[in-house]
Amino acid sequence: MKATMMHTPMTVQLIMQHGEQVFPQSRVGVFDGSSVSQTSYAEIAASATRLAAGLYRLGIRPGDRVGTFSWNNKAHLEAYLAIPSMGAIMHTVNIRLSPEQVAYVINHAQDRAVILDASLQQLFEPVIPLLTTVEHIILVGEAENPLPTGVTRCSYAELLADSEPHYDWPELDETSAAAVCYTSGTTGNPKGVVYSHRTTFVHSMASRAADTFGISEHDRILLLPPMFHANSWGLPYSGWFSGSDFIMPGPHLQPAGIKAMVRAERPTITAMVPTILGDLLRASDEEGLDMSSFRMLVCGGSAVAPAMIDAAREKWGVPVLQGWGMTETSPLCALSHPPRNPGPGGGTPWRAKSGRPVSGVQVRVVDDAGEPLPHDGASVGELQLHGPWITGSYHKDESPDSFTADGWLRTGDVGHIDERHFVQLTDRTKDVIKSGGEWISSVDLENELLAHPDVAEVAVIATDDERWQERPLALVVRERDSLSASELRHYLAGRVAKFWVPEYWVFTDEIAKTSVGKMDKRQLRVANEQGDLDVEIVRD
Amino acid sequence: MKATMMHTPMTVQLIMQHGEQVFPQSRVGVFDGSSVSQTSYAEIAASATRLAAGLYRLGIRPGDRVGTFSWNNKAHLEAYLAIPSMGAIMHTVNIRLSPEQVAYVINHAQDRAVILDASLQQLFEPVIPLLTTVEHIILVGEAENPLPTGVTRCSYAELLADSEPHYDWPELDETSAAAVCYTSGTTGNPKGVVYSHRTTFVHSMASRAADTFGISEHDRILLLPPMFHANSWGLPYSGWFSGSDFIMPGPHLQPAGIKAMVRAERPTITAMVPTILGDLLRASDEEGLDMSSFRMLVCGGSAVAPAMIDAAREKWGVPVLQGWGMTETSPLCALSHPPRNPGPGGGTPWRAKSGRPVSGVQVRVVDDAGEPLPHDGASVGELQLHGPWITGSYHKDESPDSFTADGWLRTGDVGHIDERHFVQLTDRTKDVIKSGGEWISSVDLENELLAHPDVAEVAVIATDDERWQERPLALVVRERDSLSASELRHYLAGRVAKFWVPEYWVFTDEIAKTSVGKMDKRQLRVANEQGDLDVEIVRD
Repeated sequence: MKATMMHTPMTVQLIMQHGEQVFPQSRVGVFDGSSVSQTSYAEIAASATRLAAGLYRLGIRPGDRVGTFSWNNKAHLEAYLAIPSMGAIMHTVNIRLSPEQVAYVINHAQDRAVILDASLQQLFEPVIPLLTTVEHIILVGEAENPLPTGVTRCSYAELLADSEPHYDWPELDETSAAAVCYTSGTTGNPKGVVYSHRTTFVHSMASRAADTFGISEHDRILLLPPMFHANSWGLPYSGWFSGSDFIMPGPHLQPAGIKAMVRAERPTITAMVPTILGDLLRASDEEGLDMSSFRMLVCGGSAVAPAMIDAAREKWGVPVLQGWGMTETSPLCALSHPPRNPGPGGGTPWRAKSGRPVSGVQVRVVDDAGEPLPHDGASVGELQLHGPWITGSYHKDESPDSFTADGWLRTGDVGHIDERHFVQLTDRTKDVIKSGGEWISSVDLENELLAHPDVAEVAVIATDDERWQERPLALVVRERDSLSASELRHYLAGRVAKFWVPEYWVFTDEIAKTSVGKMDKRQLRVANEQGDLDVEIVRD
Repeated sequence: MKATMMHTPMTVQLIMQHGEQVFPQSRVGVFDGSSVSQTSYAEIAASATRLAAGLYRLGIRPGDRVGTFSWNNKAHLEAYLAIPSMGAIMHTVNIRLSPEQVAYVINHAQDRAVILDASLQQLFEPVIPLLTTVEHIILVGEAENPLPTGVTRCSYAELLADSEPHYDWPELDETSAAAVCYTSGTTGNPKGVVYSHRTTFVHSMASRAADTFGISEHDRILLLPPMFHANSWGLPYSGWFSGSDFIMPGPHLQPAGIKAMVRAERPTITAMVPTILGDLLRASDEEGLDMSSFRMLVCGGSAVAPAMIDAAREKWGVPVLQGWGMTETSPLCALSHPPRNPGPGGGTPWRAKSGRPVSGVQVRVVDDAGEPLPHDGASVGELQLHGPWITGSYHKDESPDSFTADGWLRTGDVGHIDERHFVQLTDRTKDVIKSGGEWISSVDLENELLAHPDVAEVAVIATDDERWQERPLALVVRERDSLSASELRHYLAGRVAKFWVPEYWVFTDEIAKTSVGKMDKRQLRVANEQGDLDVEIVRD
């Protein structure tokens, strides 16, 4: 007996079509630093259709890669819809990589064209001489300077104006590639994760569920996560599929810009890294910030300190939902919605965890030998993932170490899973501190320190120690100059195991961050090894 | 460039595993007519595993069909999980078919075993001599009489007790068959729709979205839709995937039983046909009924009268969500969530429509020549569907008339689509009344009549008329015996076009219904043609 169901390829085309047909009146707002200009879904879909026609005219065919080098804006959303729907592959390039890394990923993906935000022209110019495959640069906005010769340049606006608002969308195989995104590459060269139409579609379905982001037509999404990073957490697709309004920040990601957009547009949901949440909490204290229009603030990329979750609830009455995800996982893996019957502590202790796997995602924790550990909330090991929107390899890269023999993704995250299947990340595999044979979690130490009212930012790394092999070293950005290492050691003493309390301290004005806003622990470790950090040693 | 994503088959196994691992504490309650007994997901999953092991021991292998003939209960949910997960195909047999039809569908599907609810033994006994492929009958509960010889009988409880709670679940192809459900067959023999693992999985994802049923762990699902009808609207799978509690009514579908379950269990969501909603509204008036625990009442199967939507809101403060779906569509196609910016009338006029297509489903309206009609809320034609969980054929049945040349499902429903993509069904193709060249909607007339306070039930069919070819005939169950045809004609006069007002009236104590509780218009038409109806003709 065979199933009688139609085979309907699950593609970005179907997502694009649904938003266009069912929600033509929904809106995309673009912030220019002072005001927000609005475009309807109907207009965006028409532009995306013209973009496909224009790219075709430039010679782009199914399977070809088209890069984007852009902030979050209207043209970027059009690229999200048009490029995969025409069967080409969108490559969202991380604008925060070095010119050499940008050239590396574009050459590695063999992009034939790049859609370049004019405001990023200066950043991109040093890349151009290094490119080996790009034939066309399509400039969105007004060029500041003429682009170097040797590459065909055209205007995005003219390309669209010269195209018909009709395109004969091809039939697509759902397992074909829709988009490629390179990991941020904290070790070695960036690696390409190639999403298929199917995985993008199913991920969008998953992130619309009531127990995930619960996105609907009634939402107004402030799109803070960069569209060049893990598909902006999938929000462009899940929002468009749902008919949500969007507010596009462009380059205005500082508290003043966010504040202006929130005031003008009253968004209902956004997602951000803890660094930005910290910025907003400080801005709220200093100058006031009304975040009450939000029904949820999704926060991820690195662990969110419980103190920040509490502060958001107290100041704004808004729940913070932690998300665990990565480029390799589309990115949604787990979310920290409190469970039913949360127990005596209520929802807060659950919100402080990394989250429970989203329907369809399987997670396990294994010991050093790869044997599964019990889900007891205590057994710490590497976390591994399997599921319909998780990568099983990297593009043209043999990385057997990243996958297990039975095909699971080794996340590089260390943590435990409890009886109710909540995952708690305790560290990155490479950030764990091994002190006298015991493991110390840098993340837990950071969370405890961040809860101190005078600590603005913190990063904890391992430093070599003659007696204990490794000891924790804490880098702290303080709010009050008189805050001392002794004071913080006393503060920690009652909160963590005694042997966890660091003796090595660095007070600094700024902590190095990666291209996606995480603390750059690799760089910090290098700086420490080279003796570039001003370390105080305090043992009292 | 190839996608790098894992291929993870999307199967019922993955749904089963997620509920079992993530929500072991969620509960399934079974109502016995007086109280509710509870079982945990962990226990249900253990029983489902034993069921798979037991069925294997009986000789059931991947691809074999196993029937169920059962009310909504715990064993039925175990069958939903175990049978598809072991690679066999669950055939949910409609207990309201005639013995000949039951035998027809079981023989047509070639079921090798049937799981039989002991309380339905009497209904099933006349079927047994007609069966050609069934080798095993597995009896849930205590047998009233010994089953006839010629077929192996075993006890469900003993089968599970004799099995280990371990099963080596096979790897499944997601396009393989998971379950088969036959249409209710208002014309000709029932036809088999065979759902695949993939379509079941993706349908479950869709029905968990915030803008569909929004099912989550916080829900308590009162499972009124029969599990033998279109997979109980998909709720067993979407609820289990989400960790929702279930309340299983067994045979207790009368207002008194529903009232007891609602009082004891405080459910948050249910789905039902309009007939049951009407029963509950009347019960509420007569003896009181507190439905305030519900966040949503889903209503579908046939059109829901706006008067009933208003009454539910006024009496209970609960929104009614209309759903459009059918066995062929898994069944979710469209839902009547009011859109953003609903306009001056608020949400109510939108709730009275059949609904807007669920993400992924495509709908179009075509004229008699099959040409698409505009979405103007006025152009009436046949509605056609395409999408990831819609059937493209019937099992061993050539029904070319049911599908278009380009592969869309012809629904047999007539209606229109408006600018905001809301579908409004106006009739079944075969129920439309053609009077003097104009179409009269039987559904619209029924809705108007149902809004009359003294009308309990109504069905409108076409009757032959010498002058106009066809005229509407209204069958009415009245609440007040003195209600007359003249009174109803006056009532309608200001509400519908004058030529719509029926001259043909039948007042009756009961209107024939189909096996799934819809007005049986085919039977009513036959009764009318044979002169079996007591028709009053009123033209004043």
